[in-house]
Amino acid sequence: MNKNASAPYEYSMLMRVRDYEVDSQGIVNNAVYLHYLEHTRHEFCREAGTSFRSMQAEGIDPVLRRVDIEYLTPLRLGEEMESRLTLRRQGARFMFRQEIFRMPDGAPVVRADVTVVSLRDGRLTRGDELAEAFAKYL
Amino acid sequence: MNKNASAPYEYSMLMRVRDYEVDSQGIVNNAVYLHYLEHTRHEFCREAGTSFRSMQAEGIDPVLRRVDIEYLTPLRLGEEMESRLTLRRQGARFMFRQEIFRMPDGAPVVRADVTVVSLRDGRLTRGDELAEAFAKYL
Amino acid sequence: MNKNASAPYEYSMLMRVRDYEVDSQGIVNNAVYLHYLEHTRHEFCREAGTSFRSMQAEGIDPVLRRVDIEYLTPLRLGEEMESRLTLRRQGARFMFRQEIFRMPDGAPVVRADVTVVSLRDGRLTRGDELAEAFAKYL
Amino acid sequence: MNKNASAPYEYSMLMRVRDYEVDSQGIVNNAVYLHYLEHTRHEFCREAGTSFRSMQAEGIDPVLRRVDIEYLTPLRLGEEMESRLTLRRQGARFMFRQEIFRMPDGAPVVRADVTVVSLRDGRLTRGDELAEAFAKYL
Repeated sequence: MNKNASAPYEYSMLMRVRDYEVDSQGIVNNAVYLHYLEHTRHEFCREAGTSFRSMQAEGIDPVLRRVDIEYLTPLRLGEEMESRLTLRRQGARFMFRQEIFRMPDGAPVVRADVTVVSLRDGRLTRGDELAEAFAKYL
Repeated sequence: MNKNASAPYEYSMLMRVRDYEVDSQGIVNNAVYLHYLEHTRHEFCREAGTSFRSMQAEGIDPVLRRVDIEYLTPLRLGEEMESRLTLRRQGARFMFRQEIFRMPDGAPVVRADVTVVSLRDGRLTRGDELAEAFAKYL
Repeated sequence: MNKNASAPYEYSMLMRVRDYEVDSQGIVNNAVYLHYLEHTRHEFCREAGTSFRSMQAEGIDPVLRRVDIEYLTPLRLGEEMESRLTLRRQGARFMFRQEIFRMPDGAPVVRADVTVVSLRDGRLTRGDELAEAFAKYL
Repeated sequence: MNKNASAPYEYSMLMRVRDYEVDSQGIVNNAVYLHYLEHTRHEFCREAGTSFRSMQAEGIDPVLRRVDIEYLTPLRLGEEMESRLTLRRQGARFMFRQEIFRMPDGAPVVRADVTVVSLRDGRLTRGDELAEAFAKYL
């Protein structure tokens, strides 16, 4: 009964489903998980000492290039989750491996690979600013 | 059996419920109606020859001051609606009376009084730019 | 500098703006506050020892009749809020007075009167089940 | 300058960005595209003579297994899009290839592979009911 036999992770946070996120099938709507994933990345940024707001203020615009998400177990009204994240850099691209687990039983909810790049004045950068912000995690 | 015995209106549009707007009670979530109302006001602006985008570009920021909404009949999966709007000015305030009816039976869905004011550089204006944009409706 | 000199309240919770809740004007979209208010009511129910989920399971359907909301100070990226709630009963209607304050400065964000009634099998009840659930707050 | 030289498609619909779907970066939020894709699938079902609602009524629950989405060109305030869909079956899995193009210039916005399976009473079916519903497209 190993509940969470997944990769080691660099950041983790707890959230609870908000009732309005549940759709007419009684489960959290598929698009809402992208909000959970985004919120987790932003809270991770905050922990790393930066923020979406401050990046925008400096003219850096992190943008999503790709999300590959598998839906494993649907979350329902009132359930709690743990959202985990691992980061690695591949040239100009930052690859987040993100996983959400239902709590307390640890059932896997979604698993996603999220690719982010960094724009400055609308142009792709080599990602050095992001790499600096995330230095201790890379 | 007069289905729509309500006020005359200046703008009207048809929409259909999108499935993700319906919550676990099987009805459109209460907050979604504010999206419908906002979308209707913006489409009305477009018809009036202006747009949210162009107002922002000119430094004018229309902002909501108050919404007083009554929920009468809930909309469900796949249903259609007609969204109607009437506008009048009261000094610096623009008062939208908005109503949504279920189609085709005309059951009243919501009725709302929406108050909008106009900011420029973060400060309340007398509303003359908005009045100009909406001249033919006031 | 106590700016929070408002009514005594029965329930209060802290939340932080999630970045995706902010719209192109740089402020939390008006409909999102209805989500905050709903989430606060549901967390209050949980504290009162009941839940949306368990009410639905018992065939009781609390539904919104009216929301009268004033927008006072817009919330922005990353800001924190305290959401407060007071409840009183008026016959079959349950009236929530809800207020949100920006933290830590206590600026008033929204103030809303929210009217809820209770349905069983689609019909209005006298509200006695809700009154029982909320007995210690009424 | 025909930029739409992509695969033939079986269903296509036009939509316009609603202003509240745009986030603080001035672009449609990444999760909203999943709403667009879902709405397109549901409208396609409707055209195919079935609907989400009627499937649920018959105890069939189509659920998402995976979404692999690439973000190519962000949509902005007021822009229009064409959303296209192609469907093929692979055993119990239904694979939607979905693409959204900005209109009128045809710039590619997103490209997604969406995998759907069918549950009955919570158990995976062989997909024969879905195959029947979509017979003329497979």
